[in-house]
Amino acid sequence: MFPEYDVIVVGAGHAGCEAAHAAAKMGAKVLLCTMNMNTIAQMSCNPAMGGVAKGQIVREIDALGGKSGIISDKSMIQFRMLNRSKGPAMWSPRSQNDRMRFAEEWRLALEETPNVDFWQEMVSGLTVKDKRVIGVRTGIGIEIKSKTVVLTNGTFLNGIIHIGEKQFGGGRTGEAAAKGITEQLVGLGFEAGRMKTGTPPRVDGRSLDYTKMEIQHGDENPEKFSYSDDTEPLKEQKPCWITYTNKDVHEALETGFDRSPMFNGRIQGLGPRYCPSIEDKINRFAERERHQIFVEPEGWNTVEIYVNGFSTSLPEDVQYKAIRKITGFENAKMFRPGYAIEYDFFPPTQLKLSLETQLVENLFFAGQINGTTGYEEAASQGLIAGINAARRVKEESPFLLKRSDAYIGVLIDDLINKGTEEPYRMFTSRAEFRLLLRQDNADLRLTQLGHQIGLADDKRLEKMLDKKNDTARLINDLKQKRLSPETINEGLEEFDTATVKEKITVEKLLKRPQLGLEKIMELDHDLKDYLSKFNKESREQAEIQIKYESYILKEQQMVEKLNNMEDFKIPLTFDYLKIPALSAEGKQKLNKIRPETLGQASRISGVSPADLSILTVYLGR
Amino acid sequence: MFPEYDVIVVGAGHAGCEAAHAAAKMGAKVLLCTMNMNTIAQMSCNPAMGGVAKGQIVREIDALGGKSGIISDKSMIQFRMLNRSKGPAMWSPRSQNDRMRFAEEWRLALEETPNVDFWQEMVSGLTVKDKRVIGVRTGIGIEIKSKTVVLTNGTFLNGIIHIGEKQFGGGRTGEAAAKGITEQLVGLGFEAGRMKTGTPPRVDGRSLDYTKMEIQHGDENPEKFSYSDDTEPLKEQKPCWITYTNKDVHEALETGFDRSPMFNGRIQGLGPRYCPSIEDKINRFAERERHQIFVEPEGWNTVEIYVNGFSTSLPEDVQYKAIRKITGFENAKMFRPGYAIEYDFFPPTQLKLSLETQLVENLFFAGQINGTTGYEEAASQGLIAGINAARRVKEESPFLLKRSDAYIGVLIDDLINKGTEEPYRMFTSRAEFRLLLRQDNADLRLTQLGHQIGLADDKRLEKMLDKKNDTARLINDLKQKRLSPETINEGLEEFDTATVKEKITVEKLLKRPQLGLEKIMELDHDLKDYLSKFNKESREQAEIQIKYESYILKEQQMVEKLNNMEDFKIPLTFDYLKIPALSAEGKQKLNKIRPETLGQASRISGVSPADLSILTVYLGR
Ligand SMILES: Cc1cc2nc3c(=O)[nH]c(=O)nc-3n(C[C@H](O)[C@H](O)[C@H](O)COP(=O)(O)OP(=O)(O)OC[C@H]3O[C@@H](n4cnc5c(N)ncnc54)[C@H](O)[C@@H]3O)c2cc1C
Ligand SMILES: Cc1cc2nc3c(=O)[nH]c(=O)nc-3n(C[C@H](O)[C@H](O)[C@H](O)COP(=O)(O)OP(=O)(O)OC[C@H]3O[C@@H](n4cnc5c(N)ncnc54)[C@H](O)[C@@H]3O)c2cc1C
Repeated sequence: MFPEYDVIVVGAGHAGCEAAHAAAKMGAKVLLCTMNMNTIAQMSCNPAMGGVAKGQIVREIDALGGKSGIISDKSMIQFRMLNRSKGPAMWSPRSQNDRMRFAEEWRLALEETPNVDFWQEMVSGLTVKDKRVIGVRTGIGIEIKSKTVVLTNGTFLNGIIHIGEKQFGGGRTGEAAAKGITEQLVGLGFEAGRMKTGTPPRVDGRSLDYTKMEIQHGDENPEKFSYSDDTEPLKEQKPCWITYTNKDVHEALETGFDRSPMFNGRIQGLGPRYCPSIEDKINRFAERERHQIFVEPEGWNTVEIYVNGFSTSLPEDVQYKAIRKITGFENAKMFRPGYAIEYDFFPPTQLKLSLETQLVENLFFAGQINGTTGYEEAASQGLIAGINAARRVKEESPFLLKRSDAYIGVLIDDLINKGTEEPYRMFTSRAEFRLLLRQDNADLRLTQLGHQIGLADDKRLEKMLDKKNDTARLINDLKQKRLSPETINEGLEEFDTATVKEKITVEKLLKRPQLGLEKIMELDHDLKDYLSKFNKESREQAEIQIKYESYILKEQQMVEKLNNMEDFKIPLTFDYLKIPALSAEGKQKLNKIRPETLGQASRISGVSPADLSILTVYLGR
Repeated sequence: MFPEYDVIVVGAGHAGCEAAHAAAKMGAKVLLCTMNMNTIAQMSCNPAMGGVAKGQIVREIDALGGKSGIISDKSMIQFRMLNRSKGPAMWSPRSQNDRMRFAEEWRLALEETPNVDFWQEMVSGLTVKDKRVIGVRTGIGIEIKSKTVVLTNGTFLNGIIHIGEKQFGGGRTGEAAAKGITEQLVGLGFEAGRMKTGTPPRVDGRSLDYTKMEIQHGDENPEKFSYSDDTEPLKEQKPCWITYTNKDVHEALETGFDRSPMFNGRIQGLGPRYCPSIEDKINRFAERERHQIFVEPEGWNTVEIYVNGFSTSLPEDVQYKAIRKITGFENAKMFRPGYAIEYDFFPPTQLKLSLETQLVENLFFAGQINGTTGYEEAASQGLIAGINAARRVKEESPFLLKRSDAYIGVLIDDLINKGTEEPYRMFTSRAEFRLLLRQDNADLRLTQLGHQIGLADDKRLEKMLDKKNDTARLINDLKQKRLSPETINEGLEEFDTATVKEKITVEKLLKRPQLGLEKIMELDHDLKDYLSKFNKESREQAEIQIKYESYILKEQQMVEKLNNMEDFKIPLTFDYLKIPALSAEGKQKLNKIRPETLGQASRISGVSPADLSILTVYLGR
């Protein structure tokens, strides 16, 4: 009844959607098999994309030719660039999204992708022959053949939902859990583990008193995720609000602690340390008198509100009592209670860097099934798994991103080489070369790679090349262009920075912390005319590259050295034990073997690529 | 944790949504409790509203102030007035709808309704005290108090889904079944039964060859459902297509008959006779060489296609083999297989005309749970149950529609007095007074009633009154206005109708079958000027009332007689046994007791209102 596919993607969450799209774009015949076609790309938890380090990932996905950026742009209701006041390595795009639109846009995008077929059903097992996957089996017993399979089951494998003392099976509220796959894989020799995550209650926006909260508008000049011209920045935005918990809220929550599935041991799986439940927060940080709550609309028109920061699996009556003590929530009506969910994952150390499993050939894992948490983490893994499944079919070598190429490289390298005990979430601090891995240059870093493998289209490539050329020209010119004291001194005073006696290059001015290109433009008419010929992205790019030139250079040199590890000597006296960031195993092995070069170190089993880049950083300073 | 509600509506299908909206509009505090807030107003089966007799119901719901008409208008992608070539009693509006938009519009409409709260959970039981319902119990064990409860569980009560020899629990594909309610109600003395229904496979529109099918466009000048100005007719429409099964299709289907859950007895519940599965059709009408298939898009943008006419629960491989033999479907790709579903219902003879149960006070049933099938049937019952729950709270008498008021009256009267063995669907033939119950006059029939009970707003009432006044004035004037032979004879000839020798009234001309008002307008300039001052609805209304005056009058007289039954003598020799339409019990009782008047007949237990109107019709002729 079905043809043989090149790639079957199981699950249509963020990982599955990216995988299906990428593989199909690269020419593979793809079947996307998911339990419910009405829930394609459902955001299980908060209606938002991006954020610190995660926003960079969305930009990287987009630069490679993936879809998450475009879908986010098309469905967003608010955009903010977080950390604008910090250095550009920290700038992180984040959107608030219309939950329904997001899912609909993804579905329509997949429908528009030639080569993607759909089948609505639960996959209950894999067909494996001689340690190679050759298809899947569905709940009603259909066998579908395929050259490769990508599993992206999210939180659905043997999912159990907890609210207070009650528990019931489910992959998300209102959706059934998936059975069979874990058991089969364990039978094949895989190790499986258990994790948990949680979600806050949803409330009726009509029942909140916003006058008691701080309003949080989107950026005045909002940007967007996609480098392409397929989307536009928002013209209108919806605001969010901020409020806080207080002692009364905490006391109300505490009355339910004895019935908490987290505290009484009913939940075994480890939860995400950096997305803790509210009961976790008041338990772990007993000294804090309040916690921030973001009050986020679920869409353009709906009155449903997502109570960000209030994830909980306490009994629903306790949730209700406590939520009504939050400022502005005095009359809050709940739509759905918060809950926690436990699910199976597979420790990702069982994978190759291509996201193919070590045990079963042509079988790929991506997303939450690998022990990560977050839409962006899932989507980026889906992208890489989809790409590599398609390449496997064409018998091409795996497509791998290095830690110095992208956050996606860091993510996968961490997973495969370090594994993870708790749900893995991306942070800027996980990237050694974060000044290189900025949100503003993901296209410069990745679009050419995406184009080479047949994912990013020509238009994207051209646009990136234009930006690259413009930036180079700009940097060159700004190093030459000299402004004279008569024209600029008055303005410099106004901007609170030292006046000059002689002509000065724009480059020099740009390195002053008080000045940016937008300000310098105002100092000199001719300069403004000249700069106006370039678009905003190129100007910003040139500015960043000039302003942070020395730091960027240093990181680039380190990357080069890392790439050229044989030349990289390690002093024999180097004290590995004093570097806490090294993995325990790496530390021990290095201390024992004492390699002479990084090249030698890299070949020691147990020393991970992460260990190597940490060493590079230390040795380079 | 919850306040005491006036009305709790269980389930947010078509019935539940109308019930919640109506009760809230009438001032009741309403809680809409449904298993999944993402599936509010999901169309379980075909993405269409209205059709023969059903379109009239949607118009009636709208005229009373319900929402289904407005939601249908806002989400439609095509509109057709069926049966335009027949008399106006048969004209039936039907829309093809965007499935996602329909659900979203309903959800937003409910969110905008003050007094409607939401709670996402399964209701697992009712709280009943002294034979009166006082609230519900949810799956996680919350008790919520309420003065009244409306159950609209649709196909979810102990739902079992069948595909070939496989069966699994579920209320709709991908959604869990609801447990507990049936068992409790049976414990309380209710009789429960089992019914079944089915749905066709969905296919990928990109895989069909439309050049081999007949295209079916929407109406050139599409109308709409709602009488209000809240919606507008479509400016652009999407076409559907028509194709046919053939011998090969039938043969392919027959290969699966031994594995059909319908034929091998695994399905016990009775299915809808008038929405049979394709296997049923080829089985029952073995002589027919082909059956019509409507190829209907599921929305504006999606490529998913609904294969109307191909409902089936045969094994999925048989579905697939057979569907590919349909002309134009040679390369069809399936998205989801068709399936049948069995579910519990409660024979509706256990209800009062208000839809309150006889056994448990303040408990109302509406929709598929009462043994009906179809969105419109469900929605209209929801409306009446919602109205009556709200009125009960205010201690007002029940709001009842008579068989001569509305199809809704016919529907409920049939259900309560005759019950139903198989899923009940509305037809024009079920209405004795169908010339009165037209789609064009539902507002004239019902808006005043809807306004009196506080459901239809002032604007609706005004609009209806304007139409009524305009129509009356028009009818009066058209009876006076005389056109002279010189002006009109040439035109009359063109229209293929006899010329006149003397002046003739417009009324007289209108009674000619060849002529309508639009045509007559073209005959005389002044008349056209005059008529142009009235809107299209009033002109059409006047035309119908004039053209069918004598028939309408006859039906109206019969209704009056029925309303005035004491005056209505029955000949003692009347042969009841010769009237097949009478209920078996009615026939027997009447034959024995031989009442002298209809009034006396009406008081005989076992003689239903339907029996009475049938008698009226017979006696009146
Ligand atoms: C309750 C809850 C709370 C969360 N809270 C947070 C949070 O606070 N912070 C955070 O960063 N992340 C949170 N997440 C995680 C976030 O939702 C996931 O990281 C992300 O959705 C993972 O994407 P995915 O594609 O791996 O899987 P999912 O989005 O879970 O999608 C899985 C898909 O696979 C389908 N599927 C599963 N099994 C089968 C099968 N056998 N056959 C066919 N189809 C199948 C499902 O129907 C679904 O479409 C939460 C998730 C949940 C459920
Ligand atoms: C597979 C299938 C095929 C069909 N085919 C046809 C057809 O060919 N022709 C036709 O005319 N009609 C058909 N129908 C019927 C049509 O869908 C229904 O008549 C109509 O949807 C009934 O509306 P309703 O409001 O009564 O219930 P539904 O639309 O079924 O809605 C029921 C609602 O109640 C909720 N619910 C149920 N139990 C609980 C509970 N215990 N607690 C909380 N919430 C609950 C559900 O989540 C849902 O929201 C079909 C239905 C199905 C499922």
